[in-house]
Amino acid sequence: MRDFSRGIEWLSINQATTRAQWSLEQAIAGYARQDVRGIAIWRDKLAECGVKRAATALRAAGMTVTGLCRGGMFPAADQAGRQAAIDDNRRAIDEAVGVRAQCVVLVVGGLAQGSKDIAGARGQVRDGIAAILPYARAAGMPLAIEPLHPMYAADRACVNTMKQANDLCDELGEGLGIAVDVYHVWWDPELEREIRRAGKTRILAFHVCDWLVPTTDLLLDRGMMGDGIIDIPRIRGWVEDAGYDGFAEVEIFSANNWWKREPEEVVRVCAERHRSVV
Amino acid sequence: MRDFSRGIEWLSINQATTRAQWSLEQAIAGYARQDVRGIAIWRDKLAECGVKRAATALRAAGMTVTGLCRGGMFPAADQAGRQAAIDDNRRAIDEAVGVRAQCVVLVVGGLAQGSKDIAGARGQVRDGIAAILPYARAAGMPLAIEPLHPMYAADRACVNTMKQANDLCDELGEGLGIAVDVYHVWWDPELEREIRRAGKTRILAFHVCDWLVPTTDLLLDRGMMGDGIIDIPRIRGWVEDAGYDGFAEVEIFSANNWWKREPEEVVRVCAERHRSVV
Repeated sequence: MRDFSRGIEWLSINQATTRAQWSLEQAIAGYARQDVRGIAIWRDKLAECGVKRAATALRAAGMTVTGLCRGGMFPAADQAGRQAAIDDNRRAIDEAVGVRAQCVVLVVGGLAQGSKDIAGARGQVRDGIAAILPYARAAGMPLAIEPLHPMYAADRACVNTMKQANDLCDELGEGLGIAVDVYHVWWDPELEREIRRAGKTRILAFHVCDWLVPTTDLLLDRGMMGDGIIDIPRIRGWVEDAGYDGFAEVEIFSANNWWKREPEEVVRVCAERHRSVV
Repeated sequence: MRDFSRGIEWLSINQATTRAQWSLEQAIAGYARQDVRGIAIWRDKLAECGVKRAATALRAAGMTVTGLCRGGMFPAADQAGRQAAIDDNRRAIDEAVGVRAQCVVLVVGGLAQGSKDIAGARGQVRDGIAAILPYARAAGMPLAIEPLHPMYAADRACVNTMKQANDLCDELGEGLGIAVDVYHVWWDPELEREIRRAGKTRILAFHVCDWLVPTTDLLLDRGMMGDGIIDIPRIRGWVEDAGYDGFAEVEIFSANNWWKREPEEVVRVCAERHRSVV
């Protein structure tokens, strides 16, 4: 397992972590000022900036883009909705190519509007990924399914375990992988086995933050690494044993804490915790 | 699958559903007034009332006790804490016998204080159940592991899937079963298979409520059946296909809605929804 205490060479920060404070250009500059070498980008922020301008700023800062957030959201109540999702995913792939992202992160979507059919939603996710995969392959852009915590199964992602993600990769093949986020998967009794099953080629990203006790909001109360109860080094050990040697990407949605702090401080704490508890 | 539209013969109400409004005696009387024939009891409410007095009131009302909530909470930071949990579980078994409950529901507990070792917590749960099981068997009182939603893995229950519960039943044997609560398991891609695996002898209770979108609180924002996105009849169908022929027990924690309503209205809506959407 790599020794992160020596430096932040493998630290990436997902710009969601400072989304309340900084635009994309501000985030690129702000992270770079503290020698952070990786960033993950959100499409709404990218749209504000423009892909070309972002690409220039990223190149100037020497920044690796560890992921573009996000594609997915496949299930829909009708064919027009499903097609719109597929079209939007193709645009996400284009944008990811434009900023040289390492992958497009897929938050696959939950139940279609008005539906209670979770098995049907899962089928729509499989069909949606199958529909965009040839386009992603042609673009040389890997797609990373991010299994989301089961508390998001209804409204954000009906792929909720590494096992489901691995099964989809088995079924759909080349060009598809997984983003492992400790927040979503730490509880899973089959996590170690499914990380091993995923292996080096499938693990396209590794996201870190922490699970707070108590957690006061399902979406916007993630913790800084070390402030919660996830044994992050243990999971990183499994991921690295499987062959992963990329960035550890900090992604924190925190309406009442980190989004209210000075962004320079947020970056500084990310770097400290990366060295001490990741 | 039984036709629930014809009546409420198989409706039980967990008194947590009216816990803000009614004592145990009030709940027994209030449920009975609307011809509800099953109740699940909480130990704090039972302690207020006293076991003997409760047993008398239950008998007079002709009420079946579909479960006593709750045993469990096994993991602890030290041996004294683990022993205290075991002693408390024995008392729960005695109380369950005193009110002729069909089972003691086990909310097994999350991480021990200060610990990040979820595998260790799961080991402590197994050891804790193993320690009380002979006592439960001798008392003729079944223990029902309730797998809780993964969002409770840290602080309430580290058994989060039917598969884990089935594995524990395989390992520990006779006298141990499962309480299937749709709120906790509806998202699980392996649910149908694991319900089938559990079968008639292991499924000791079936709990219903609904998952609201959005859910505004991790603990106290459960929905009335029909107000959320769980396909309850589908899951009841699986449970009954497995041989379950007992009560459907309504258990709703709802600080800002159902706990604020007139309890008579809550019972009336439980009965209506039992007939129409369960």
